This record gives sequence, structure tokens and C-alpha cells, in this order.
Amino acid sequence: MTEHGSGPGGWRAGASFQEMGRALPPAGRHPDSRGYRRFAWTGADAECRDWFRAQAEARGLVHELDRNGNQWAWLGDPQAGDAVVTGSHLDSVPDGGAFDGPLGVVSSFAALDELLARGTRPTRPLAVVNFGDEEGARFGLACVGSRLTAGRLTVEQAHRLTDGDGVTLPQAMEAAGHDPDAIGPDPERLARIGAFVELHVEQGRALDLSGDRVGVASAIWPHGRWRFDFRGEANHAGTTRLTDRRDPMLSYAETVLAARREAELAGAVATFGKISVEPNGVNAIPSLVRGWLDSRAADQDTLDTVVTGVEKAARAYADAHGVDLDVVRESFTPVVEFDHALRDELARILGRDAELTVPVLGTGAGHDAGILSDRVPTAMLFVRNPTGVSHSPAEHAAEDDCLAGVSALADVLEGLACT
Amino acid sequence: MTEHGSGPGGWRAGASFQEMGRALPPAGRHPDSRGYRRFAWTGADAECRDWFRAQAEARGLVHELDRNGNQWAWLGDPQAGDAVVTGSHLDSVPDGGAFDGPLGVVSSFAALDELLARGTRPTRPLAVVNFGDEEGARFGLACVGSRLTAGRLTVEQAHRLTDGDGVTLPQAMEAAGHDPDAIGPDPERLARIGAFVELHVEQGRALDLSGDRVGVASAIWPHGRWRFDFRGEANHAGTTRLTDRRDPMLSYAETVLAARREAELAGAVATFGKISVEPNGVNAIPSLVRGWLDSRAADQDTLDTVVTGVEKAARAYADAHGVDLDVVRESFTPVVEFDHALRDELARILGRDAELTVPVLGTGAGHDAGILSDRVPTAMLFVRNPTGVSHSPAEHAAEDDCLAGVSALADVLEGLACT
Repeated sequence: MTEHGSGPGGWRAGASFQEMGRALPPAGRHPDSRGYRRFAWTGADAECRDWFRAQAEARGLVHELDRNGNQWAWLGDPQAGDAVVTGSHLDSVPDGGAFDGPLGVVSSFAALDELLARGTRPTRPLAVVNFGDEEGARFGLACVGSRLTAGRLTVEQAHRLTDGDGVTLPQAMEAAGHDPDAIGPDPERLARIGAFVELHVEQGRALDLSGDRVGVASAIWPHGRWRFDFRGEANHAGTTRLTDRRDPMLSYAETVLAARREAELAGAVATFGKISVEPNGVNAIPSLVRGWLDSRAADQDTLDTVVTGVEKAARAYADAHGVDLDVVRESFTPVVEFDHALRDELARILGRDAELTVPVLGTGAGHDAGILSDRVPTAMLFVRNPTGVSHSPAEHAAEDDCLAGVSALADVLEGLACT
Repeated sequence: MTEHGSGPGGWRAGASFQEMGRALPPAGRHPDSRGYRRFAWTGADAECRDWFRAQAEARGLVHELDRNGNQWAWLGDPQAGDAVVTGSHLDSVPDGGAFDGPLGVVSSFAALDELLARGTRPTRPLAVVNFGDEEGARFGLACVGSRLTAGRLTVEQAHRLTDGDGVTLPQAMEAAGHDPDAIGPDPERLARIGAFVELHVEQGRALDLSGDRVGVASAIWPHGRWRFDFRGEANHAGTTRLTDRRDPMLSYAETVLAARREAELAGAVATFGKISVEPNGVNAIPSLVRGWLDSRAADQDTLDTVVTGVEKAARAYADAHGVDLDVVRESFTPVVEFDHALRDELARILGRDAELTVPVLGTGAGHDAGILSDRVPTAMLFVRNPTGVSHSPAEHAAEDDCLAGVSALADVLEGLACT
């Protein structure tokens, strides 16, 4: 690996990387939280898309917006087939950090710059991709752009997605100038891709603990989202006797604690991070408390054990309070084992440089790479995150580690596309 | 008392009451919940105010909008002094019922109609009042109109009130055409009032259990609102190990359950009915969980015991999870003992009719009558609520009970103002 991307002619990937980082607009950054709110098909999303298109055009790459709102920047003939694609996403969770998604896109352009600065000549088409709506922050379902492309979300299901203000996905797409009737599976596009490599900031501390800058993904844990609707009876908080209450906040609270216990017992993770309450008045016992459970585990059986345990406990709590409970599985992604041949190839390419050890690690986070993994040979690179914090304004990666990621990605692209 | 308000000349209060109930606009009614969302200084509030003015004008009453946004409809000379005032409010909690507030205003106009139909001639000025922003649903503080008038909320405090969208009270007033610089104490107005009687749907089941249609209030329990801010660290719900988390949802949940236990032990009530979470994403551990505690008890010591107990438990939970906790008392109202002389006078007036027993009962709900009680002799009448449910679309009072309330109020006005 070329250290810090200093290639032939003195070109340094760092310059390209830093320049792009500065040029990426502060779209959707909230003045109070300092976190990003880049939700699908909003103005902040459009600003990020404009930036992507400008980066493509500045390099003379062919820019394409596909039927599902994913952006592609092609070097070489997009129709030739057996393409090597890299990239990630530019949208964010509510008050997300600067790295989750954008690091992969910025690093992809910078790696392409480094590759060309080395004087190598790709023999396969190369592309950078920005997948739309990866975080699912607005419509509640993650990876909508890649799911649609892979046929893992039907057009009918997508057309029913609705945001918190009652705006449907088709309405949001139309408002942003995208034709919602154009969306759907895109097998022809996937058939032209020979390999997809996504670079991402690590969302845990494995690399920090092992002392490595860059790692290769082995698998994505199975994970899902379950909505718990506790329905009681709205009533006056000052005049209703405790014994006359059917207060759904109580069973919600008990269920939050049960989820933590079940996850601890199983060695998994479980989180209630989103809640919606009606009428949500200080002096009103709620009629509805809606909580979302996110749970993940290293294998399917463990995850089933956790979720079954939480649901069973929630039903008992709800019964005890005279509260009705509906549990709806809103999304589920089985375990993803990344392509073993591609993973081994990455380890071989990166292992050429004896200074770089290449740890292989699993992750609890979902990614577009996971969605595409059963249609296209797919791999991921992780860049060290010293605190493990992500989905937060405090998310961070050191610049040296980011540049090591760019060079690793350039090596991978060279190894895959220039041999 | 004249049964069902059939007075001289065959006039029946029921006709007036029903007609007004039909004429009251469905302002702020939500199509899904069927509850009302009549928040201060919104369009729905303006529709209710237009209705009030129209009712005043239709009767030839003098309509006044005071400096604090309260509406008055005068029969007789407003300046004469020693006035007898009745009324309530027209705003609502989120998804409130049809009776809490509007029953008192509609009944006041109907009682005035009945009084005049009886042929009595008031010797004191009479007025119907609609106090602004009683529920505090928008700006978080109840009884803003009466608090300002009584000087129990300073202009500076009122100017700092802000709704959930960041709109300040002055901005909301201006948008509704009301001068925010005009607000402030109105002792001259209060000095002209000799007695204030508020009729209200009961918000408990005491009258239902005793088999009475109408009751007289003895006292309002001391009550308050406390905001609990649990601050942890936002992080990824899939990749952050349980032991690395500072999840404020867990300490919130434990505190909700502690509040219920403390209230049960003390024979009080305590409720967490409103919550705000940041970033409120399904796959993000929250950075902030803000919960509001509403608690009330028959006496001050009991209330102190409950709130101190909840706060102490919350601090221990927060510490255990590495979460910071701030507790802010947002409002507090000490016990209100209604004027004993006026209360006894009401009981005497209503007791003339041997058929009507007059139970005297305390309540856990706050009212404008409570706010004014240390400035003006004040009393309250309650109308039976068969389920006790209030602050909910299911809130209800039978029409016969409502008409009994109108007649009782007419008797009170006659007894106080026509002797």
C-alpha cells in the first residue's frame, strides 16, 4: 500500500480527500445539536446529490441517476459489464455524525483520484455510487434505494411508506422531481456489476482495540425493527384514580427494561430509541404509547430468543394494566455473510504491504452492501473509530486513519480492476 | 330549582343549551382521534372566540377582549362593580373531549337565558367569561389568561413561553392579532368582580358514585409539573455494546415505574404523560429523554413526599447508567380552598330544592377558578361524568345532567345577583 496515498508525480490522496470534505455542503446540519439531518428527498438530500453530481462532472465521469434515486459516477463504459463499484450513502440518521456514509463516498472519489495518479489503467469499468435513503430516518425502512434495486422491496410496499407528517414516499419523490412510477427492481444494472466494495467508518471499537486502521468485514448480524403499540385510555392525570387507569406508559416502561435484560442474557443488543405518544400532554394519561425495538445478535436463534422474550414480557405487562398490545415486525434482515472469495481477495491485496494487518470483523450495523450481497459479490472495508460512537454528532475518525482507508480502497480498486 | 329549566312562558333552558352546543364550531377536531386540538392562539382557538363573540352579540351583551386575551360578555354596567361572573374556557388539551371547558361557557350563556326567561331582574352586573389558554397545551403552562390577570405570572415569564415549534407566546399572540405588549396584571378588572362561579364537567367519579347530578367544589389539590431531562450519549443501536452505553431511556423507564410506586404508597397521583426524545431514531440510542411528571395530592406534605421520592429514585437510576439528570419544576399551584362563605351560599341556594342534594367535593384538576381564588370570592359547580374520563375524546356527560347543571347555575346567578 502506498503510504498516505503519495503516488507518482507527488500527487497525494490527502489533498483530494480534504478538499472534498470541505466542499461537501453542511446540508442538514442542525445549529443546536451540530448533528446532521439529511433525510431522503428533502432539501438537504438534494444539496448532497448536487455535490455528488459536481464531483462526477469535475472528473469527467458519466453521471447517472437510476430509477430508484441512486446516483452513479462511471469511469469507463457503464454497459461493458463486470464493473467494480465502490461508494456508500450521503443521507443521515436524525442528528447523525459527519462520517457514517459520507466517508465512503468521499473516500471512493479520492481513491479513484489516487488510482489515476498512480498511472494505472483500469481494464474493467469503475463506478462510485451514492445509494438513496440508506438510513431510513424519514420513512422508517433502511436501505430503500438498494432494496428497490435488488427487488427486496416491492413497488407496492415502497408506495405505502409514509413519513411522520403523513407524506408518502411517492409524494416526497415527486416533490423532489423524481418519478415515483419509475421505481422498481433493476436486475440489468446489477448484472453489470462484478464486485461492490463499500468503505465505512467502523461503528464499534474492534479496530481501536486491535490497534488497526482498516479492517475487512466478515458478516452483518441479523437484525430487525419491531413496533410495539400499547393502547390504553386517555384520561385526566389529576383526577383519575390510579386503580381506574389503563396507562400504557407503564407497560412501555416495563418493556424497555425487559428488552435490556433479555439482550444482556443473550449477549445481543436491544434498544428502544424511538417513541411516539398520544396525546402527549403533561396532564393527560396517554391513550397510545408506540415504541420501536431495534435488536441484533450474532445469529438468528439468539435474536429470536431476545425478541420472543421481550414480546412475551410486554404482553404480560400490558395485560396487568388493562392495556392492548400490538407488535408488528417492520423490517428484518437475516445474517449476511459477505462473499468469501472477494473477502479473501481483499485480504490478499491489502496483505501485500506487510505493515498493514487486515483484521476481519463482523458488525451489527446494516448496510447497502448487505442488501446487495446475494445479488453481487460484495465486500466492506472499515476505518477505525477511536470511540466507537456513531449515529451521533460525536462520531469521529482521525484524518490519518481516513487517508489509510483511501489508500486501502485505491489498492483494492487497483487489484480488482487493473490486473 | 326549576326542573330542566322550564321557566315562565314555557321557555326551556334545554333549547338554548342544545342550540348553542350545535352552533359551537367543530374547531380543532381531529378526524382520526375525534378529539379536539384547540390550542391557544391557533386558528381553532380563533374560531371558538368568534363563536363566543357571536353568542354575546346575539344576546345584546357587551363583548370585551381584555389585555390578556380573555373574553367577557356583560349584562349590565361592567364598571358598576360587585359583578357576578360565570364562565370557563374553550381551549383543549391535545385530543381533548367536548365538555372540559366548553360545558361551562355554554352553560353560562344558557343559565343567563334561563334567568331572563324567569323574568328576574339582576341588581348586580353579570358576565360570562372565556379565559384564554387554560389547558396550557401549547406553551406548557396552564391558566395563562387568568394567571396574567391575577398577576401570578409576570410579563417577562409570559414572554419567554415557547411552544414545541419554537414559537414564543408574543409571536403567537401577534400572529393572532393580539398585542403581546398589552399583557399584564389587571387588578382594576378583578376589583369589579364580587363573585366568580365556574361550572365544569367533573373529572372523576365522585358524583357518579354518590348518585348526584351536580356538586359544589371544596378545594383543589396542590399540584405541579416537573420536567426530568435525562442526558446520555447518542450512539448506534446495532454496534454499541450494552456495557459501553449511556442510554437515558433506561433511567426514564425506571423513573416512570418509581413514580407509580411513590404515588400508590402516598395515596396521591403521579403521571408521566408527555415525552420528548432526541434524536428519536429507531436505530439510535437517545442522547436525551425528557419526561414530564404531573403529580397531585390532597395536601402539600404528601405531594412533597411523592415528588422527592421520585426525584431521589431518578437520580440513583441516572447515576447507575452514567446519565445526567436535571429536574426542573415548571409550575406549581398550592392547595386552593374555595371561599367558604360563597361555597355555603351556593349550598344554601341549591339546597332550597329538597330534591337536589349538594355534595361538596375536592378535585385534583386545576382551574382558572383556583388561580383567581385569592383575589376574588370564587366557587365551582361540577356536573356528573358517568365514567370519570376526561382529557379524552371519550369524555362525556349526559344531556339531562348538563341541563341540571344549567338550572343549578341559573339558580346560583339568581340567588347571588337578583336578591
